[in-house]
Amino acid sequence: MDDGLLTTRDMAFLVHDWLDAASLPPRGGEALSRESVDSVLELAEQGARDWFLPHYREADRHEPTLDEAGVHVLPAVREALRRYAEVGLFSAGFPPELGGMALPYLVQSALFAQFAAANIATAGYAMLTIANARLIATFGSAAQVDAYARPQIEGRWLGTMCLSEPQAGSSLGDIRTRAEPEGEDDLGARYRLVGNKMWISGGDHDITENIVHLVLAKVPGVDGALPEGSKGISLFIVPKVLPDGRRNDVAVAGLNHKMGYRGTANCLLNFGERGGAIGWRVGELGQGLPQMFQMMNEARIGVGLGAAMLAYRGFRLSVRYARERRQGRLPGVRGGAPVLLVKHPDVRRMLLEQKAYAEGAVALCLYCARLVDEESAESRSLLALLTPVAKTWPSEFGLAASDTAIQVHGGYGYTRDFDVEQLYRDNRLNPIHEGTTGIQALDLLGRKVLRDQGSGLAIAGARIASVRDRAAAVPALAAHAVALDAAWAQTLATIAVLERTPGACAFDNATPFLRAFGHLVVAWLWLDQALVAVRDPADPFCAGKLRACRYFFECELPKIAVWLAFVASCSDVAAAADPETF
Amino acid sequence: MDDGLLTTRDMAFLVHDWLDAASLPPRGGEALSRESVDSVLELAEQGARDWFLPHYREADRHEPTLDEAGVHVLPAVREALRRYAEVGLFSAGFPPELGGMALPYLVQSALFAQFAAANIATAGYAMLTIANARLIATFGSAAQVDAYARPQIEGRWLGTMCLSEPQAGSSLGDIRTRAEPEGEDDLGARYRLVGNKMWISGGDHDITENIVHLVLAKVPGVDGALPEGSKGISLFIVPKVLPDGRRNDVAVAGLNHKMGYRGTANCLLNFGERGGAIGWRVGELGQGLPQMFQMMNEARIGVGLGAAMLAYRGFRLSVRYARERRQGRLPGVRGGAPVLLVKHPDVRRMLLEQKAYAEGAVALCLYCARLVDEESAESRSLLALLTPVAKTWPSEFGLAASDTAIQVHGGYGYTRDFDVEQLYRDNRLNPIHEGTTGIQALDLLGRKVLRDQGSGLAIAGARIASVRDRAAAVPALAAHAVALDAAWAQTLATIAVLERTPGACAFDNATPFLRAFGHLVVAWLWLDQALVAVRDPADPFCAGKLRACRYFFECELPKIAVWLAFVASCSDVAAAADPETF
Repeated sequence: MDDGLLTTRDMAFLVHDWLDAASLPPRGGEALSRESVDSVLELAEQGARDWFLPHYREADRHEPTLDEAGVHVLPAVREALRRYAEVGLFSAGFPPELGGMALPYLVQSALFAQFAAANIATAGYAMLTIANARLIATFGSAAQVDAYARPQIEGRWLGTMCLSEPQAGSSLGDIRTRAEPEGEDDLGARYRLVGNKMWISGGDHDITENIVHLVLAKVPGVDGALPEGSKGISLFIVPKVLPDGRRNDVAVAGLNHKMGYRGTANCLLNFGERGGAIGWRVGELGQGLPQMFQMMNEARIGVGLGAAMLAYRGFRLSVRYARERRQGRLPGVRGGAPVLLVKHPDVRRMLLEQKAYAEGAVALCLYCARLVDEESAESRSLLALLTPVAKTWPSEFGLAASDTAIQVHGGYGYTRDFDVEQLYRDNRLNPIHEGTTGIQALDLLGRKVLRDQGSGLAIAGARIASVRDRAAAVPALAAHAVALDAAWAQTLATIAVLERTPGACAFDNATPFLRAFGHLVVAWLWLDQALVAVRDPADPFCAGKLRACRYFFECELPKIAVWLAFVASCSDVAAAADPETF
Repeated sequence: MDDGLLTTRDMAFLVHDWLDAASLPPRGGEALSRESVDSVLELAEQGARDWFLPHYREADRHEPTLDEAGVHVLPAVREALRRYAEVGLFSAGFPPELGGMALPYLVQSALFAQFAAANIATAGYAMLTIANARLIATFGSAAQVDAYARPQIEGRWLGTMCLSEPQAGSSLGDIRTRAEPEGEDDLGARYRLVGNKMWISGGDHDITENIVHLVLAKVPGVDGALPEGSKGISLFIVPKVLPDGRRNDVAVAGLNHKMGYRGTANCLLNFGERGGAIGWRVGELGQGLPQMFQMMNEARIGVGLGAAMLAYRGFRLSVRYARERRQGRLPGVRGGAPVLLVKHPDVRRMLLEQKAYAEGAVALCLYCARLVDEESAESRSLLALLTPVAKTWPSEFGLAASDTAIQVHGGYGYTRDFDVEQLYRDNRLNPIHEGTTGIQALDLLGRKVLRDQGSGLAIAGARIASVRDRAAAVPALAAHAVALDAAWAQTLATIAVLERTPGACAFDNATPFLRAFGHLVVAWLWLDQALVAVRDPADPFCAGKLRACRYFFECELPKIAVWLAFVASCSDVAAAADPETF
C-alpha cells in the first residue's frame, strides 16, 4: 500500500538517473557505489515507515507537556530517535574520524526526505541535532567537538539552535542575550549568559539526558553596553547539564502551542534566571552570525525539503484516495455506477498540480543538495543563488499542494481522521521559520542577484542554456525549450530594469520577483528531468514525469510573465501605501 | 481597539454609499430608512462583539462531546444563540406575519457578516436554522409552518440540512436514505425514514429542546427499489422530538472532528435504527432537490460571505499587529530603533493583498445579496451566473488572505495564541462545503455560461460596460476601464472557443475558467466601488479603497490572461493524464 513515502522508483530516478549520486567525489574514505547508496536509502525508507510513521498522528494529538521536571514528549518519539541513532543515521554525514560514513549531502538529504515525509516533527529533532553537531565540528575546538559534537553524532544527546528572541525574530541584530566573560577552561573561553530565547525546537524534553544548546548572544563592550547590530554576535555552547553533572541555568519558561509540528517541543527558554548560564564560545568573537549562516544554508535546504516531502506524501495519499473512492459521474453521463474520483478531469488536474509542485520541489532541494557536494566555486555561487529559492518555493507551493490534497479528499480531508489534514497544518510553518518568504526574497534579490556581480546568475544562465539546447533537439520537448528561453530572457530584462532603479525601490517588489524566479528555476529543473524521462516515454513512470513537466510549462511557467511585468513596472502600489488607509 | 469586525465606516460604504440599501423596494410592511438599517446593523455589531466573539477561541478548544444523552456544546454557544433569538435576529428576514421585519437580504447578509466574523461556528447554527425555516415557509403547508418553521423563526429550536451520506457527498443523486409512506396526518404525508446522513452541522446538541432536520430521501417505487438519480429525491421534516413528546428514531452515530469550525457540532446521524424515523414530506414528491437548491443559492452566498469575513477579520488583525510590532530596519538602513512592521514594503504588500481579497470578497457577496432583493428577471439571471463565483472566489482567495494574515504575524501567527491561526483553519472548510470548487466550476461553465443562452452573461456584460464607461470618464480610473474591457473581451473570446469545443472537453478546464471569471467579476466590482470612493480621494478611507482597487488591477487582473489562454487552448494535459502515471 502506498503510504506516501518517496517511491523506490522515484528515489532511483532522482538520485541515480537524474543526479547520478554515485559519480560524486568521495568525501572521505572510498567512493560510494550505487549499491551502497541504495542500501542506505532502503534503510531510511524502512526506518521511516517502521519507526517514524506510526506515531505521526499520535504525536500531533498528544503534544509535549511541561511540569516542574521539564518537558515530556511521547515515548514513541524517544524510541524512534533511539532507533535512528542505533543504525548510525545521526552520524551518516560525518567523516569516519567522527564515526560517520561521510555520505554525500545529496544522499543525506534523500534519506532525510523519507523521515520528513513520515514524521516531520520527530525528524526535526534529528535535523537540528545534526546541524548543531556539524557547526561544532566545523568551528569548535577539538575539546568542544569531543565533549559536545560526538555525543550528538552518536545520537546520545540532542541539540538546539537558539537564535530568535521574543523581540527579535527575523531581525537577529536586535538580540539582547548577554554573555559576560568568565575566564577560560578546557572547553575554551567561558561565559555567563543571560537572556530569553524564543521558538526553540527541542528546547527541552525527556528524550536524552543532556541537550546541547547553540546560543547566539552578545558580549558587552568595555562600557558594559551590548554592541549594536549583527556584527557583535557570537556563538556559544550552552549544555542543559554541565560537565560536572549539575543542571545549567537554563529554564523552560513555556511551551509554544503551534498549529502543526506539534510533536516537536517548541520552547521559550530563559537563560540565566539564577545568575547566568555557563557557555563556551565557539570560534572567534563576533563570528556568530557568519558561523550560523554557514549552517543556515543547509538548514534552509532542509526546510524546503521537509515542505516538499509533506507535499509529496499528501500527493501520494491523494492518488491513493482518488483510485479508491467513487463519486459522481463524468460530465454529460447520467446513470450507471459512480466512477472513481481519478476519472474526473478536475481531480486529475488537482493530482497533476500536486505532482508538479511536490515532485518539482523535491527535485529542487535534491539538486541544491548535490551542489553542496560539488564543492566548486561554481557550485557555491549557484547554491548561494538558489538557497532562498530552495527554502521558499517548496514552502509556498508545497503548501499549495497540501491544500489541494485536502480538496481531493473533500469533506473527509478536512477531518483529523485523514493525514492530509495534519500535513497541511504542519506545512504551514515552512514559509515562516528559518527566514520568512519576505526575508528570502530580499536575500535573493538584494544579495544574490543585484550584488555578487550576478555570478550565481551567470552560472544559472549557462546551465539553463545547456538544458534548453538539449531539449531543443528533442521534438517532444522543443516547445518547452523555447518557453524556458523566453522566461529567462524576461527575467534578465527585469533584473536589468531593477539595476537601473535607484535606491531601495528595487526591493519593493522582491517577493513577486522571488516567486517568478522560483517558477523559472523549477521549470528549468523539470525540463532537465524530462530529458532523462524522455528516454523511455512508454514507461508509465517516465510518462508521468513528462506529463508533470508539460503541466508545469502549460499552466505554471506562463505566470512568470505576469509577476515579472509587475516587478519591472517598479510599481509603488504597495510600498507607497499609507498605513492610515488600510 | 480594532477587533476585526466590519468597521462602521466600511459597512456604511458598502451598504449605503455603494449598494444603497435604503432604496430597495419594501419586502413587506414599509420601506426601510437609512436610520432603521443602521440601527439593525449596529445591534448586529454589538451582538457579535458581546455575545459571539468572546467564546471564539474557547469553542475551538472545547469541541462538542458525545455521550449517551447526546451531544453537549459549550454553554457560551447556547447563551449567544439565546441572545440572538431574544433580539429577533432569527426572524429578521421573515415577513411580519411570521413575526419578522422582512429585512432585505442585503441587510440580513450585512448583519450576518458581523456574526460570521466574530464566530463562524456559532453563527453556523443560526444560518442553518434560518435557511431551514425559510425552506419550510416557502414550500411547506400552513400546519408545517406553524409546527416547524415558527419555533425556528423564534429561535426556540434550531434546524439542520441533511443532504450528504457517507457514500454521496457531491453526488446527491446517489443517496440511499429511504422514506416509506405511512399514511397522512395533520402535518401532511407521513413517512418512515431509514438511512445515514453525514456532515450534519448542528446534527445534535443541547442548545434547544428540539431540532428540526430537513432530510433528503428517496421514496421507493412500486417494485420496492429506490429511483435512480436526483429526480427521485424528496424533502422531509424529521424532528428530533415528535409532537407527542417522544424521541424520534434519530441517533448520533458519531461526531466529525474537523480542522476548524469546531464549535459547530458536526454529526453522522443514523435515521431509523429502531424501525424508522417519522418524517413529513415537504411539497411534492420528487421535488426535494429543486427545493433544496432554491435555498442552496442563498446558502452559497452565505458560505462565500462567511469566508470573506474570516478573511476580513484576519486582515484587520494583521493591520493592528503591523501597527504595533517593531521588527528590523528598512532595506539599506543600518542602526537605529527597529521600525514598525507596517513600514516594510513587503508587509504593506501583504496587507494590501489581504485588503483586495477580503474586501473584494465581502463586496462580491453583498452585491449578490442585493441581487436577491432586486427580484427581477434580470437580477435572477445575473444571480444565477454569479452564485458559483460568490461561493468560490471568497472561499479560495479569502483563504489566501487568511494565509497571508498568519505570515504578517510571523511565528506568532502560527501559534494558537493568535486568532489568525484559527481563522485560517476555519476558512479551509469553505472551498469544500455546499459544493466544492470543482462542482461550482462545472455549474458556472456548464449551466450558467454554455447553457441558459448566456442570459446571465449578457447582463453581466451590460453592467461591466456601464462601469467601464463611467470609469473611462474619470482620469484616475481610465486605465482600469481599458484593462477591464480587455479582460472581458478575452473572457468572451474564450467562451466562444469553448462553445465550438465538442462534447465534454469544454468542461475539462472548468476550474481555471472559474478562477479567471471570478477575478474578472471582482475587478469589475472593485472598479464600481472605486467610482464611489473617487468622489473623496483625500479621505484616508476612500484612498484605501482606491489603492486596493489599483492593487487588484495591477497584480491580480493580469492573471486572467494566463488562465484564459490555458482554457482557450483546450489543453488535455490534465484530462488525458493516465491515472497509472501519477
